[in-house]
This record gives sequence, C-alpha cells and structure tokens, in this order.
Amino acid sequence: MIFGAIVAGGTGTRMGISDMPKQFLPLGKEKKPIIIHTLEKFLMCTELDFVYLGVHKDWVDYTHELLKKYIINNYQKKIFVVEGGTTRNLTIINMINKIEENHGESSDHILVTHDAVRPFLTLKMIENNIENARKHRVCDTVIPAIDTIIESTNHDFITTVPARKNLYQGQTPQSFYASEFKNLYNNLTPDEQNNFTDACSVFVRNNIPVKLVDGAGFNIKITTVSDYRIANSIIEGDIID
Amino acid sequence: MIFGAIVAGGTGTRMGISDMPKQFLPLGKEKKPIIIHTLEKFLMCTELDFVYLGVHKDWVDYTHELLKKYIINNYQKKIFVVEGGTTRNLTIINMINKIEENHGESSDHILVTHDAVRPFLTLKMIENNIENARKHRVCDTVIPAIDTIIESTNHDFITTVPARKNLYQGQTPQSFYASEFKNLYNNLTPDEQNNFTDACSVFVRNNIPVKLVDGAGFNIKITTVSDYRIANSIIEGDIID
Repeated sequence: MIFGAIVAGGTGTRMGISDMPKQFLPLGKEKKPIIIHTLEKFLMCTELDFVYLGVHKDWVDYTHELLKKYIINNYQKKIFVVEGGTTRNLTIINMINKIEENHGESSDHILVTHDAVRPFLTLKMIENNIENARKHRVCDTVIPAIDTIIESTNHDFITTVPARKNLYQGQTPQSFYASEFKNLYNNLTPDEQNNFTDACSVFVRNNIPVKLVDGAGFNIKITTVSDYRIANSIIEGDIID
Repeated sequence: MIFGAIVAGGTGTRMGISDMPKQFLPLGKEKKPIIIHTLEKFLMCTELDFVYLGVHKDWVDYTHELLKKYIINNYQKKIFVVEGGTTRNLTIINMINKIEENHGESSDHILVTHDAVRPFLTLKMIENNIENARKHRVCDTVIPAIDTIIESTNHDFITTVPARKNLYQGQTPQSFYASEFKNLYNNLTPDEQNNFTDACSVFVRNNIPVKLVDGAGFNIKITTVSDYRIANSIIEGDIID
C-alpha cells in the first residue's frame, strides 16, 4: 500500500503571528489552515491508499476539529492522525508503527513523507515520488541550488566553495519503503539518530543511492513571516515564478 | 583609499515586469530604483572615499540620469560610473582599472564589492567588511544555510549530504585589496576565469583564507518576481525577519 505521511510535529510559533504552530496558520482569502492546503494535495492523488498526519500530542484534538470542518466525511476514512515524536524522523517512525498496526506489516508499504508547511507541492511531484520510490527504493525532491554556498568547518574562514552546479536544495516529499526506513533508523547510533534531520540522510548513511526528483521554486517551506507573506501571494495568484 | 564597488553589469530582464534590468526597477512607495537604494547605503558610510558603479555600457547614460535625479550634487563628486565587463569579475576588474587611473595605483586600495540588487545591506555590514578586509585581506558576507543542501555530481542520485551546520549562503559585500584581486585574477587560467562566478572564489583558489562576516536574512538578492515582491514588503516595513 502507499501512504502519504505529512510531518507536522512541530510546535514552533516563532513567527509571532499567533500562538498556533505555523502549520495551522490561515492561508489565502478563505483562511484555510496551511496543513489543510497540504492535505488536500495528497487527497487529490488516487494512488495513495491512506494519508497520515503526524502532529504534536497537544494538537491532535485540534487537528481532528480541522478535519471535521474542512474535509468532507468521505475523506475522513482515508486520514489518520498520529502523535508526533520529538524529532522529524521519530514522527515518521510513529506513523510507520501506526500504519503497521492499522494495515499490517509489509515490506511493500511505500511512504511519501512531506512537510506540512509546504502546501504548494503538486500532484505531479507526489506521482513522481511514488514512481521513483518503487523503482529506486528511495527518492528526494530537490531543486538546483540558487545561492552560492560556502563551507566553513571552523565557522570563521571559508574552507571550500563547492561547485554550485553540483548542489541542490532539498525539499520534500521524500519517499521510500517504510519497513526499510524503520530498520535503517533503528540501527543508527543515538548520535546519528540525533544528527540526521531528514529521512534521506539515513539512506545516504547506509550507502543506498537516493534518486533525485524535480521539485519547484514555488514549493516553499513556510518558516518565517516573509515566507508566510510569499505564500499568501502565491495563493492569491500574484506570484508565478 | 577605500572604495565601494557596486556590481550592476547585468542586463537580465527575465522578471518580465519591464524591459529594464532588475537593478533599475522601482522599489517602495517612492518608486526609487533598486540601484539608488543600494547606492544610498554606501553613501552613508563615511569611511568610503569613493563609490564606483559598474553598469552595462547600454545603461551608463541612464545611470547618470538617475544620479542627477536622485542624488544631490554634493554626492556626485563621490560617484563614478564605469562600463561593466561580460562577467561579474570582469566588471570588478574594470572598476579597479578606473580606480587606478583616477586615484593612482596602490597596494592599499580596499574594495567593498556589492550586488546592486541587494539594497538592504546595512551600514554595519559595510563597516564590518572594511574592518575585516584590513585585518584579514579578504572577507565574505554570509548567513548560515537555511535549506538542507545535497550534492549530486551525476545530477541523478545524491552523492553526499554535507553537514548543514558547516554551510553558509554567500551574500555580498565581498571585500579585499584591489591590487591583490587583480593579480590573482590575471593569473587564473581562462577556464578558471570563466568558472569562478564571484571574487572570493579567486582567493579560495589561491589558498588565501577568506574571513566570514555576518550577513542577514533580509539582505536578499532581488532576482525573481517573488524576491521583488518581498523587497517591496520589506521596504514598506511589512516584513521584519
């Protein structure tokens, strides 16, 4: 089976716009929460059997309220809300555990993991992710790096300037076989578990080739006030980059 | 002597907002061109003896018109407009040649080079650049990388995921001794001259340690329509990141 896994475990409210984590902020003229915009993209994809939402335990009830308010009853059979963990990868592990509990363990379960705060992903990105996860076991959605990136290991002087043509900005979705990810993650040292902030790093660590899938500039992650304003402009059709 | 060197040699009009290169687009309610906003920041810095603008030959006259319109007469003695070259570094070389012609050759001339399309730099950044160029010969303005950056040398699968904590996004100003840069640049192979898109890479290539100077998230480079909209929001005080 194929699962959407929307990662929304954060409680960051540093934008200062409200006391809600940013994935719950209203977006566009309809004032629909960001996480609902994201969820709707997943619900458009008929290849997905179920969509899981990993949210912080304090926001599970609120998320259920949003689902009741914004998603028609028929869709609710397709959606499960799971308590998030203390890190992104632990939130994914919690979703995998719940998936195995609900639908049985299988080495064939594919997970399309995605940031709740990237509401502009396209159906095409989800489909490409599913196809490439099937074909290559694991894939990552990326765009060519725009900025000049420099590396400094001493945080004082430039160590190297890696060739920009080989650099990409990681986005999401990141997609892979659920059981494989769980095994690899559980075999990491505690240090590695803390240091790897995304799922694909876990595969790279194990020398498993991660296929690149085309993202898009507009598939932004809403983390700052300016991101939030850009997001509102995108949704109102003001920005087509 | 210390020189501001604003790089505005591009003719890119890909934003499609007008047929003017983006550095000439109006910004804010006053509709003042981006390049004038940038120039004003340099004119605020009393440590700078002169400010040079490197613009494409087709836009030299227009730039002079803008200076007449927006900059009071007194300031015009401080500003020189120079024809840009075909690359960023060649535009810098042209400015250095003109500086040596106007003010004499000296191994003490310091250049604070900056993108015309980064109008939000601060006086503090310019001052920090001057101080660090004096102390360390060369410095680069950077911010810690926000996005996950991945490297792929085959453009198909991830090669490595460099530790984000060691990565920085390059901004400008980049500051250094003019004569040293000119010597180093002239000693590069033609291939290197083509491949190095910024001045600091020329120093890194020669194993000269480039000091990091703190930039800021708001010191954005205006290259796309969404950048342009963010810039207008920043200037109207809507965004404080």
